[in-house]
Amino acid sequence: MEPSAATVPPMKDLTDENITPNVHIINSQCPDTRLKFLLTSLVTHLHDFARETQLTTEEWMAAIQFLTAVGQKCDDIRQEFILLSDTLGLSVLVDGMSHPKPPGATEGTVLGPFHTHDAEHFEIGDNICSPGKGEPMLVLCTVKDTAGNAVEGVTVDVWETDDTGHYDTQYPGRTTPDCRGVLTSGADGISFKCIKPVPYPIPSDGPVGKMLATLKRHCYRPAHLHFKFKKDGYDELITALYLRGDPYETSDAVFGVKSSLIAELDSITDPEMADKHGMKAGDHLLRWDFVLITDRESEELKAKLAKDTLHKYKSGARLDHDLPVADN
Amino acid sequence: MEPSAATVPPMKDLTDENITPNVHIINSQCPDTRLKFLLTSLVTHLHDFARETQLTTEEWMAAIQFLTAVGQKCDDIRQEFILLSDTLGLSVLVDGMSHPKPPGATEGTVLGPFHTHDAEHFEIGDNICSPGKGEPMLVLCTVKDTAGNAVEGVTVDVWETDDTGHYDTQYPGRTTPDCRGVLTSGADGISFKCIKPVPYPIPSDGPVGKMLATLKRHCYRPAHLHFKFKKDGYDELITALYLRGDPYETSDAVFGVKSSLIAELDSITDPEMADKHGMKAGDHLLRWDFVLITDRESEELKAKLAKDTLHKYKSGARLDHDLPVADN
Repeated sequence: MEPSAATVPPMKDLTDENITPNVHIINSQCPDTRLKFLLTSLVTHLHDFARETQLTTEEWMAAIQFLTAVGQKCDDIRQEFILLSDTLGLSVLVDGMSHPKPPGATEGTVLGPFHTHDAEHFEIGDNICSPGKGEPMLVLCTVKDTAGNAVEGVTVDVWETDDTGHYDTQYPGRTTPDCRGVLTSGADGISFKCIKPVPYPIPSDGPVGKMLATLKRHCYRPAHLHFKFKKDGYDELITALYLRGDPYETSDAVFGVKSSLIAELDSITDPEMADKHGMKAGDHLLRWDFVLITDRESEELKAKLAKDTLHKYKSGARLDHDLPVADN
Repeated sequence: MEPSAATVPPMKDLTDENITPNVHIINSQCPDTRLKFLLTSLVTHLHDFARETQLTTEEWMAAIQFLTAVGQKCDDIRQEFILLSDTLGLSVLVDGMSHPKPPGATEGTVLGPFHTHDAEHFEIGDNICSPGKGEPMLVLCTVKDTAGNAVEGVTVDVWETDDTGHYDTQYPGRTTPDCRGVLTSGADGISFKCIKPVPYPIPSDGPVGKMLATLKRHCYRPAHLHFKFKKDGYDELITALYLRGDPYETSDAVFGVKSSLIAELDSITDPEMADKHGMKAGDHLLRWDFVLITDRESEELKAKLAKDTLHKYKSGARLDHDLPVADN
């Protein structure tokens, strides 16, 4: 903006020691109290990080060059900054705070970049994968509320990779969706056929991949099956089920695994059950009970979380729409 | 790296609450103890920032898009991430920590992007600006050590804008350097002729400019004259002098002004002095006493600073080459 339009309060006695409060003073004219609060917290943490580590000019320049490379790796289909956020555990943290859950409700986890809006609608019991995509797996799920009542009419999105670890969208020339589908829950929840998920690597040919290699981290995600539950009046649930015993169960490159989302993979032993679902004895079987929360339960939880957060501030903050904002 | 080459310690009982220590566990295989320390501090502050602000998914996505735009604005001559660091006060903080100064020594400040290595060498008393660049100013400086002894043979780089607020490098088709020069200090320090500095804007046509406008901040730097002092055995001093009374003295967009670097602009009243320096009575006069510190003084200060920093950590850190590193 033109300087004549700015009425900046003067910084005081500028020294190395008081640079942080002086940045706050300069930013204090921001009319958006939420943005002002975010900036104050961000600048404080950024400066504390530099002070606590005695960050050197050379390290700072290396960080500038890394962030520049991350930005320049992004294009219409590649988002390297989201990958950076994922691999630093920030994405799953933000996601968890946005959708807090009471005990007993199914926890959420990261959406990831492979959900699409063109998945076909399937009937209960259908196979969402075309033939030859991997080892057959039957999925039987209940969908209930926190009181234990079945929630019918929930739109359930499901998606996974094929057994080479690739989503349909990763194949050039994709014409129709595969290994993904939309179902509607009935009184018994949902059931469908698909394939046993497999582990796969996140994109590692960019600066984030280099970072992981420098840190001696691998770039793999453990085998998982994505779910998204949507129904009016209920908090949207974006989650995934992970298979116990996967080699990356305790080292997911993007920290999406949660203890409460690890499922024991079973197999079909009862020939009658196999027949009923059009499967063979010995095929994989995954059972899960999903528990959704209502919008109201979600709002009450978020309000409580906001109040708990505010207690940490002796001054300078108040709540507005259940989020902390600058109080002046 | 290939997962088979990674020996990642397992994360424990993954939940929203313990994501931060789990990220530390995954990063703990980094063989570079300094990098491990930096990552641990960075992840802790990043997660604390998100928790304290209850960062929402929408705000997180806006930040991802902002950082992507900052990265994509960078090219061979434009570095928007440095500009972001400058406008958040981080650059001047890192610079100050890298070159701590004892009381009485001249403080440093940001180098900025306009220093070049092709400035001509001038003799004491020369004019570093070609005719017509602005209001004439005589600069008389002593260059001493902390004991008060003159330091001769110091290479002193000086650079500034013309009176339109542009450095020579900002003009297309520049063939020779102007408004910049290199001098060597003698027993009386250095003296040279130039022009009175003027305020100027930092580049504001990118995402950082948009950020400043959203925060109701202006994009101006107060009038200043850059200096760089270099001599074997002495800590390189990168600094600038700011003119008292400048409209942006207390609101520098990049926080480069320090109280100890604000100079009172005088004018030449003595006709004999004017004659001696080839100036006119009434021309501007800037006097300053620069005080350099030796490499040894600098190293001792940094060692002390590192020890003070380490005292903040109850465990997990030790010093290595006067920088805190992870102690395992």
